[in-house]
Amino acid sequence: MRLSELSERSGVSTATIKYYLREGLVHPGLRITATQAEYDESHLRRLRLVRALIQVGRLPVATAREVLSHVDDDSLGRTIRLGAALWALPNGPDADEEAPETVAARTAVERLLEGLGWATSQEIGTLSPAYRALVSSVATLIRLGYPCDVDHLTEHARLMHQVAVQDLDMMEAYPTEAEQVEAAVASVVLYEPLLMALRRMAQEEESARRYGL
Amino acid sequence: MRLSELSERSGVSTATIKYYLREGLVHPGLRITATQAEYDESHLRRLRLVRALIQVGRLPVATAREVLSHVDDDSLGRTIRLGAALWALPNGPDADEEAPETVAARTAVERLLEGLGWATSQEIGTLSPAYRALVSSVATLIRLGYPCDVDHLTEHARLMHQVAVQDLDMMEAYPTEAEQVEAAVASVVLYEPLLMALRRMAQEEESARRYGL
Repeated sequence: MRLSELSERSGVSTATIKYYLREGLVHPGLRITATQAEYDESHLRRLRLVRALIQVGRLPVATAREVLSHVDDDSLGRTIRLGAALWALPNGPDADEEAPETVAARTAVERLLEGLGWATSQEIGTLSPAYRALVSSVATLIRLGYPCDVDHLTEHARLMHQVAVQDLDMMEAYPTEAEQVEAAVASVVLYEPLLMALRRMAQEEESARRYGL
Repeated sequence: MRLSELSERSGVSTATIKYYLREGLVHPGLRITATQAEYDESHLRRLRLVRALIQVGRLPVATAREVLSHVDDDSLGRTIRLGAALWALPNGPDADEEAPETVAARTAVERLLEGLGWATSQEIGTLSPAYRALVSSVATLIRLGYPCDVDHLTEHARLMHQVAVQDLDMMEAYPTEAEQVEAAVASVVLYEPLLMALRRMAQEEESARRYGL
């Protein structure tokens, strides 16, 4: 398809598509004349992911480019390829390594992972931005004086593991590994607000069931 | 206790406590001389919640004041008191009512709630900011061309309901209704980053189990 059709089908203006092409967020089309190029479904898919990262996830262009470079790197194994892409996404603040509550938080997270049997997470440890974000969140609970109960965290972690199982099952419905990695990255960005909205609605629903309206 | 002890035990500087008192975020202590007041555990608890809202949730002072006014309103039933406090929290953008995908998203959300049997959520509908945020998130999926499968949403909603059950169980461990509402509001703000970190770690763990490291 030509640029105009790509614009129409993707809902992205031709000016914005040209900008994404210049910035290397979308791969070039097949040049057919000096001024025209031909685009295909892979460009549509890529535009969809770029919009998810930039318009919904509010990633700066440079960060989106880094995420996409990992998505596109088929020399990596699937876990590493996916991990590298997810690790380049914003992950919340790291814990303050100097603070005493960070030590307590790390101990709690290690007990949590031990109890869950999450061997890979234990192995990867602080290399993972998600691990560091978890330690930081737990350290905040402790610093503010809220209870941090490993059993309660364990229940939450088990439920989030079920979410991840559902997401990876959905991802596997895509035919190629490239599309699977793209879908996984998009799902992290697009499903976070959705899951948090569902959690708040569930809290309203459960409260009304327990205490009436 | 005196202001200095309140500062020490809460980890909030005396200047900041005075600012929160002036802004009406913390209730005044019992005045014992012209220049001194006596504070108690309720002040400590309130400072903990104010820090959660302002320092972690990044709420503006005016928004925090509105949330706290609902937390403090014991003329409301518990669901409404909790709901009013949660509804005053930032909830993500509302859906664009003019956009065609919003109609499709609303239909999907109504089918979801019908299937779940969430009668209160159906009844409250768009009055709830969480409902509007969910419609907006689903509309984004549709607009970007990602699949929006009601069965998949249903599985996620069931898991988020289990999270809410755990959170309300934890909340009920607090002795008074005021403390319960405070704990529920704090948990929304403090557990969102924690749950999202757990989800990403679970995705890493599950990916490594399926595809190796």
